[in-house]
Amino acid sequence: MESGAAKNVVLKFYTMSLKDLIFKTRSYRRFDESFRIEYKTLKGLVDLARLSASGGNRQPLKYLIYNSPEECNRVFPSVVWAAYLKDWDGPVAGERPSGYIIVLGDTSITGAFGVDHGIAAQSIMLGATEAGLGGCMIASIKRELLRNELQIPEKYEILLILALGKPVEVVILEEIKDGDVKYWRDAEKNHHVPKRPLDELIIKL
Amino acid sequence: MESGAAKNVVLKFYTMSLKDLIFKTRSYRRFDESFRIEYKTLKGLVDLARLSASGGNRQPLKYLIYNSPEECNRVFPSVVWAAYLKDWDGPVAGERPSGYIIVLGDTSITGAFGVDHGIAAQSIMLGATEAGLGGCMIASIKRELLRNELQIPEKYEILLILALGKPVEVVILEEIKDGDVKYWRDAEKNHHVPKRPLDELIIKL
Repeated sequence: MESGAAKNVVLKFYTMSLKDLIFKTRSYRRFDESFRIEYKTLKGLVDLARLSASGGNRQPLKYLIYNSPEECNRVFPSVVWAAYLKDWDGPVAGERPSGYIIVLGDTSITGAFGVDHGIAAQSIMLGATEAGLGGCMIASIKRELLRNELQIPEKYEILLILALGKPVEVVILEEIKDGDVKYWRDAEKNHHVPKRPLDELIIKL
Repeated sequence: MESGAAKNVVLKFYTMSLKDLIFKTRSYRRFDESFRIEYKTLKGLVDLARLSASGGNRQPLKYLIYNSPEECNRVFPSVVWAAYLKDWDGPVAGERPSGYIIVLGDTSITGAFGVDHGIAAQSIMLGATEAGLGGCMIASIKRELLRNELQIPEKYEILLILALGKPVEVVILEEIKDGDVKYWRDAEKNHHVPKRPLDELIIKL
């Protein structure tokens, strides 16, 4: 028995539980820009979005993928960063995202994208965490600037920018105080995010 | 060594990779209605949504949870089922959902929910799969009927119904043909869902 047990090679396959994965999927805005993301990694993340639900199964979303420093430099100026941090204009050189997935809505398929891009973005950001990356979903976009810079045809609506990289900041979830949802940074640049408690979210009628 | 190896109890902890989880998270519309879902399971799913991203961190979503047969019977008539299946009026008695999470937007916090409910719904549906359940995100809702039946105050916008249960149908992903996105059922009641290929979704400019 002992001999058999010793020979029995156990392959431990470990991935995170979904709750761990969601817990680790914070919004990160500072990165190690020297860490480059492979194109195939970003393509794999889009595949996660592809396999996710779509209203009426219309699948109207299209994706732009950028991972080279040159491409990232073209996208960066169109991102509006962290509205609540008034003294911060976004990540400095060296701490900027090293990849972007831009989510577009193809109006030749439908004019109503519902929450398809929310579903897709969550799949992508969870996949990024699993791949050791992190990032931020951004809806505050200088859309005309981006459209001109990248020459995005009018038939595509610019829905979201997903900024990605190797995070270098610590994000701390904490309980909300006095209903103030504004995230803030402490002296060590740790990023604090107040979250409403579960019992406030589940209502009874 | 052998003796030591034999004594070394290996705890295998296995959860799915995110891709497996997303792949298994299909839209299911027929369930084993005799399987009841515990309230705490649904509460745990809402907690996954709570920990997910929210635009400007406003966290304006609220949730209603229903799991008893009586409650489910009150929600069911407000759901509009599977628009593409013209000969099907929704699941018959015995195959109906055994739980619902209704996602509301609290207009006292903001009037603009962005894609928060898409993000939240995806977290919840992935969690449902992990918990051995399945279901469907539903945006086609008889909203006034539901509001009246459940006495939902006007300050809450009805955003989504997430119908949940133990699925009893097989869902088959297949490649799209001639751009036709309509899902369909075969003679064995298997549900076929055409998906666009990845190379169609990633565009190059």
